[in-house]
Amino acid sequence: MENGTIGVWLIGALGSISATVILGALAIGKGAAGAVGLVTESRPFRELHLTPVDALRFGGCDIRSSRLTDSLAAAAGDVPEVAAQTLASSTLQIEAIQRHLTQGTRRNCGSAISALAEPVDHCDRPIRDDIAALVADMQAFKREIGADEVVVVNLASTEPALAQAPCHDSLEEFERCLDANDNNVVSAGSIYAYAAISAGCPYINFTPSNGALLPAVIELAEQRGVPIMGNDGKTGETLVKSVLAPMFAMRNLEVLSWEGFNILGNLDGKVLANPENKEAKIRTKDAVLPKILGYSPHSGVHINYVPSLKDKKIAWDFVHFRGFLGAEMSLQFTWQGIDSILAAPLVLDLVRWAVLAKSRGEAGLMTHLGCYFKNPLGVTEHGFHEQYAHLRKYCAHVMESRKSV
Amino acid sequence: MENGTIGVWLIGALGSISATVILGALAIGKGAAGAVGLVTESRPFRELHLTPVDALRFGGCDIRSSRLTDSLAAAAGDVPEVAAQTLASSTLQIEAIQRHLTQGTRRNCGSAISALAEPVDHCDRPIRDDIAALVADMQAFKREIGADEVVVVNLASTEPALAQAPCHDSLEEFERCLDANDNNVVSAGSIYAYAAISAGCPYINFTPSNGALLPAVIELAEQRGVPIMGNDGKTGETLVKSVLAPMFAMRNLEVLSWEGFNILGNLDGKVLANPENKEAKIRTKDAVLPKILGYSPHSGVHINYVPSLKDKKIAWDFVHFRGFLGAEMSLQFTWQGIDSILAAPLVLDLVRWAVLAKSRGEAGLMTHLGCYFKNPLGVTEHGFHEQYAHLRKYCAHVMESRKSV
Amino acid sequence: MENGTIGVWLIGALGSISATVILGALAIGKGAAGAVGLVTESRPFRELHLTPVDALRFGGCDIRSSRLTDSLAAAAGDVPEVAAQTLASSTLQIEAIQRHLTQGTRRNCGSAISALAEPVDHCDRPIRDDIAALVADMQAFKREIGADEVVVVNLASTEPALAQAPCHDSLEEFERCLDANDNNVVSAGSIYAYAAISAGCPYINFTPSNGALLPAVIELAEQRGVPIMGNDGKTGETLVKSVLAPMFAMRNLEVLSWEGFNILGNLDGKVLANPENKEAKIRTKDAVLPKILGYSPHSGVHINYVPSLKDKKIAWDFVHFRGFLGAEMSLQFTWQGIDSILAAPLVLDLVRWAVLAKSRGEAGLMTHLGCYFKNPLGVTEHGFHEQYAHLRKYCAHVMESRKSV
Amino acid sequence: MENGTIGVWLIGALGSISATVILGALAIGKGAAGAVGLVTESRPFRELHLTPVDALRFGGCDIRSSRLTDSLAAAAGDVPEVAAQTLASSTLQIEAIQRHLTQGTRRNCGSAISALAEPVDHCDRPIRDDIAALVADMQAFKREIGADEVVVVNLASTEPALAQAPCHDSLEEFERCLDANDNNVVSAGSIYAYAAISAGCPYINFTPSNGALLPAVIELAEQRGVPIMGNDGKTGETLVKSVLAPMFAMRNLEVLSWEGFNILGNLDGKVLANPENKEAKIRTKDAVLPKILGYSPHSGVHINYVPSLKDKKIAWDFVHFRGFLGAEMSLQFTWQGIDSILAAPLVLDLVRWAVLAKSRGEAGLMTHLGCYFKNPLGVTEHGFHEQYAHLRKYCAHVMESRKSV
Repeated sequence: MENGTIGVWLIGALGSISATVILGALAIGKGAAGAVGLVTESRPFRELHLTPVDALRFGGCDIRSSRLTDSLAAAAGDVPEVAAQTLASSTLQIEAIQRHLTQGTRRNCGSAISALAEPVDHCDRPIRDDIAALVADMQAFKREIGADEVVVVNLASTEPALAQAPCHDSLEEFERCLDANDNNVVSAGSIYAYAAISAGCPYINFTPSNGALLPAVIELAEQRGVPIMGNDGKTGETLVKSVLAPMFAMRNLEVLSWEGFNILGNLDGKVLANPENKEAKIRTKDAVLPKILGYSPHSGVHINYVPSLKDKKIAWDFVHFRGFLGAEMSLQFTWQGIDSILAAPLVLDLVRWAVLAKSRGEAGLMTHLGCYFKNPLGVTEHGFHEQYAHLRKYCAHVMESRKSV
Repeated sequence: MENGTIGVWLIGALGSISATVILGALAIGKGAAGAVGLVTESRPFRELHLTPVDALRFGGCDIRSSRLTDSLAAAAGDVPEVAAQTLASSTLQIEAIQRHLTQGTRRNCGSAISALAEPVDHCDRPIRDDIAALVADMQAFKREIGADEVVVVNLASTEPALAQAPCHDSLEEFERCLDANDNNVVSAGSIYAYAAISAGCPYINFTPSNGALLPAVIELAEQRGVPIMGNDGKTGETLVKSVLAPMFAMRNLEVLSWEGFNILGNLDGKVLANPENKEAKIRTKDAVLPKILGYSPHSGVHINYVPSLKDKKIAWDFVHFRGFLGAEMSLQFTWQGIDSILAAPLVLDLVRWAVLAKSRGEAGLMTHLGCYFKNPLGVTEHGFHEQYAHLRKYCAHVMESRKSV
Repeated sequence: MENGTIGVWLIGALGSISATVILGALAIGKGAAGAVGLVTESRPFRELHLTPVDALRFGGCDIRSSRLTDSLAAAAGDVPEVAAQTLASSTLQIEAIQRHLTQGTRRNCGSAISALAEPVDHCDRPIRDDIAALVADMQAFKREIGADEVVVVNLASTEPALAQAPCHDSLEEFERCLDANDNNVVSAGSIYAYAAISAGCPYINFTPSNGALLPAVIELAEQRGVPIMGNDGKTGETLVKSVLAPMFAMRNLEVLSWEGFNILGNLDGKVLANPENKEAKIRTKDAVLPKILGYSPHSGVHINYVPSLKDKKIAWDFVHFRGFLGAEMSLQFTWQGIDSILAAPLVLDLVRWAVLAKSRGEAGLMTHLGCYFKNPLGVTEHGFHEQYAHLRKYCAHVMESRKSV
Repeated sequence: MENGTIGVWLIGALGSISATVILGALAIGKGAAGAVGLVTESRPFRELHLTPVDALRFGGCDIRSSRLTDSLAAAAGDVPEVAAQTLASSTLQIEAIQRHLTQGTRRNCGSAISALAEPVDHCDRPIRDDIAALVADMQAFKREIGADEVVVVNLASTEPALAQAPCHDSLEEFERCLDANDNNVVSAGSIYAYAAISAGCPYINFTPSNGALLPAVIELAEQRGVPIMGNDGKTGETLVKSVLAPMFAMRNLEVLSWEGFNILGNLDGKVLANPENKEAKIRTKDAVLPKILGYSPHSGVHINYVPSLKDKKIAWDFVHFRGFLGAEMSLQFTWQGIDSILAAPLVLDLVRWAVLAKSRGEAGLMTHLGCYFKNPLGVTEHGFHEQYAHLRKYCAHVMESRKSV
């Protein structure tokens, strides 16, 4: 079953990560690029023979209505040679994807995101209608491409944090709020997640938006037998942090302060320049240290928009620590990454893992995918190596169960 | 048995690591310092209740004949407050240690190390006489302090690499070369290790010197039931490297180049400024990457002597890597450590582990201590986290076996 | 005349810069420290034979009432050896300074600064009374120490920016507002500066506080024949910036973005963690680039309070620039300074320059001191090298005029 | 006269700097690139109206015989967009340059450079024949393109240092050695310089090779009325160093150590990986500090070849310095430049300055161009800002003299 066509429905389909996901899948399909960056193609996992990347077909939605070709042209800037070998010969495929792009929702996404959106939106229609429209879009996509499964991935900009509400904790109560069209308890993310699960589609929340995988929504996924996971893809600074922080713990060195500064120039950076969106992001980045160290050193995560950097994301972290006899020392690092290039292969990985989980009848949070997220829901391991070990154990378990069939 | 007096016989006893080991043990004994930096005092291992640090008594040898108080005064510069609370009230203890310092050997240590040594040395006496003298020194030390065990730790400067010889691979052949007084097949490290094991003392090679734990010497340790381990304490740049390199592998990112530059100003740096000594050091630092990554990126490790830094050791590493679709990115870090402060607690840890191993009847290489060494002999895990997991497993095993008694 | 006793009246006398100024002057007087860091003692300026550092006597005010000995003990942490050689033998001098410390004003200094102050303050008394009290304090200090001159230096924490008011532009109008006790047009800085000039004391505004050297106050200084200068001592990141930025202009390289992150742990950092105080500081730091480059690249200056760093001030700057054919490149630097250590010698320099200017009958802004300030008032050179050349020209001019006498 | 055609004869014409010079001149001619990076086009100098870049015609020599189009394609990698707009429409011009490329000499260039060369060379013919052949090549080039002047620029790889010989100090003696065909006293650089000056062509030594501008050769230039200048274009790390080092002097801060590490991946890097070539390079880089500071701190310049970096040149410099009261602080910077992109506009600048000097009848060293070189011959200013001020004075002088005509 895993070798049939699989649909990938991207929320924020015109953004730079989506464009790189699509460009990458096309390039791999044409042999213009290899598997570097795809964890699922590295040695321990390759033998699982997950859905081939070239079996993926793309669609999705966006709140903007620019052309996908423009997004792809922008994404091509990071990898001009691969793009040159890929885009010109992919015209038909790109047109097909463009035809499967629909209008997204920006409900409670804040002013920074709304500023990007087309004036025409349906924010004032009842929530249930929004959901129904999205379910219909996803089902239509699945039908039209003849897919066995459709995986929905949220790659939209960070929403402002959704305030906790009592109804979030119970599916029954949450349904009642939806029925009552209570606009205060949902964000766009909640609606996408609810719709995807209702349509039977695995859902990946690659954003920090906390409105998506509410306890009530997780409950829905468990009920419907749909695998889901989030939050916030771990691509750069936080990845390094979750690798380095355990070192201090393992050497019994005391972290006094860990201050991180991120500068980036893409749309994500622009949206994050808005305090309410930034706040939500920082919350997932900043939670890592106490969980790993077992205490809370002084720490800060700062994000600044520097347009000239475009898709480059540079982070400088300064770690001040105390060693034997109280002597103070420091470690600093500068990470110079390209955001979409780091994120895109993880998205492809996650789609492939979701398809596997669905085929195995797994429902709810895929906690074995903790190593992919800054704030992995339901996961107790916080160091990267432990999270990775969990994934390897899962893989071994799958291989074992296949043999026993 | 673990609570009796334990002797620690330090080779290079007047060097800065030794001085910090002694200062630290005194400070802990007086309550002037806590357990930061001691891995054996961190949560997973504390419950083993290893030999208390204040049960350790120190002695050793050096090729210089300066006063220990001078070494301690220099070490105090890194931690003036702790030193002020400790040294003045430790006069008797320091004098006792001074009385247990004997003359070391500089056999085949190269010109850089010989330049540090006193003119009076016994390089021209037969190897067997050197060994016998060292065995006598160690036994006298044990007797005089009334110790249950003496652990010997090599903290001397890096020797030039000892050329491989056929006799290194078999104890029988090696003994024959010693009898024949073949000076080409041994270095000071070989003699120290051979003597320690002959005297029944666990031996820790904290230096990169490859002459110490020759296969023949390991064979001797197995025969005599003595636990040993090496090589080269993993304190700074290589520690970070063995933590970060697995991240690239786990994300399927291709390391193109990893170039590391170390600057340091202590005696170790001065000796390493000599090409033949540096070569030996770089060999252990540089071997880490291929073992972790499974391929050999371009890599270099450079060490330079910068006297003004004194005991500070600063490393700048530049990692150039390739991600999805071939896009190139980079990570650089600057590590600003204090060499002795990082090394000393590991020495105390290793002594405690060695006492435990001896008491449990373990002989030969203590492979569970891989996380402490740049080039851990007999160890198959090369990433730091895996090495640490090995140590935790060992700890669990010990706890289990205690319960079953 | 320059060799008589000179009084230095420090505003913020219990702060860390003041303590280092005092410790340094004592140490130099006792021969425990040399002239490193004193620009006035470097080759081109030494021949001016300015007031000897050991001819300086200190007094001042603070809004806190802790003991100077506590401040000195804290400052000693940066230079333990020099302090050990100095403080014990300076008891009488330190007590004398303590006797000359009076109560400062925190008028319109904002909540962050007020939180540091003693509850007893005279904020509610008329402005003119505040001024009269300060004038009296300064005159009493001068009389008691038998000084030829007293130089007043503002080393207090950064005040929130004082809003511009029409009366700031004319001394006549400003006097009228003082008479009317209009509390909205003054801050503590204005009052200190007005009082000092009224008392005939040269005034140095080493802080960014914009309330001090208002145009009306500068007019007063010109009228009274008193030399003054400000704003904001150029000690670290901005110094490097004003050195490096001209390089880009001189090579015709286009700076696209210049993003700077400062972390520091002293009281200054704590006050700057308050947004209204930070805003005032960033304004003087951020103005440098456009003036040097002739255009305004994207730039940001960020300041964060990291308590564990204490008096250390670390800045990471990332410069993104465009070169030939549009290719993009970058320069990043990490500055690891000790704030008071960098500031204190500049304060001593400025006092010495002010005494010289007063003796030469110079009045108003000392524009030849531009190289000492982040935002030098009345100065047209913005690159550090040009500012320094200006100082050398002034020095040559002074030497010339001496010869002609 | 300055607006006629000017020939530029590049030694090392197939190297990456040459290719970027040619690509850049073509791009500027076509309007595909602006003047960023050209100092001669920045404000103070623009008004001199030097030879337009599109009046330059290129030729030269190389010891390799690969195609210029390959070099240009490699250079295009740094600036793909500009190259795409330029190269396709420049076929005829590129072919013309290719026709003017002749065989270079590798006399005494060492094994690293010889390894790059074609087997066919004329190393064994008499030196005088080599010179005559080069003079003929340059004259033919001038004639064929109808140039008013030809400027010769040495962009070849760094030669091993040429040992000093008594005959280097006098033209008369040097001529005698050439007549005697004494191969020990010349390198390829000497021959190129001698030939260029003999042909009446201004000569720029952009390389560190010390064999080029020997005192005897400078004497020849003075005699023949030919302007010349060198050594070693100041493009990256040394530029920053000559900007930052004066800051320490001007603040009376004592530099304890300045350690610099360069990594680069182009052919220059490959040649410099050879110790004899590296030695020559480091000599010019390392001389800067003592001249600026007036004393010699511990310093080192290290260069390592890291192939994956290609034309990128990354330098990490660590500066350890002492401030007030002996407190130690540090500054570190990471320069991430693209070697050819930084060098090429300086080459165009230097050609334009040389044409101006020739037209003004200036002969011998053009000391006003000190800011362009790491080791500017005959120049007493060593800080970058002073060197730049010298150039501005020269410019003002030229403008003045034009007015007076």
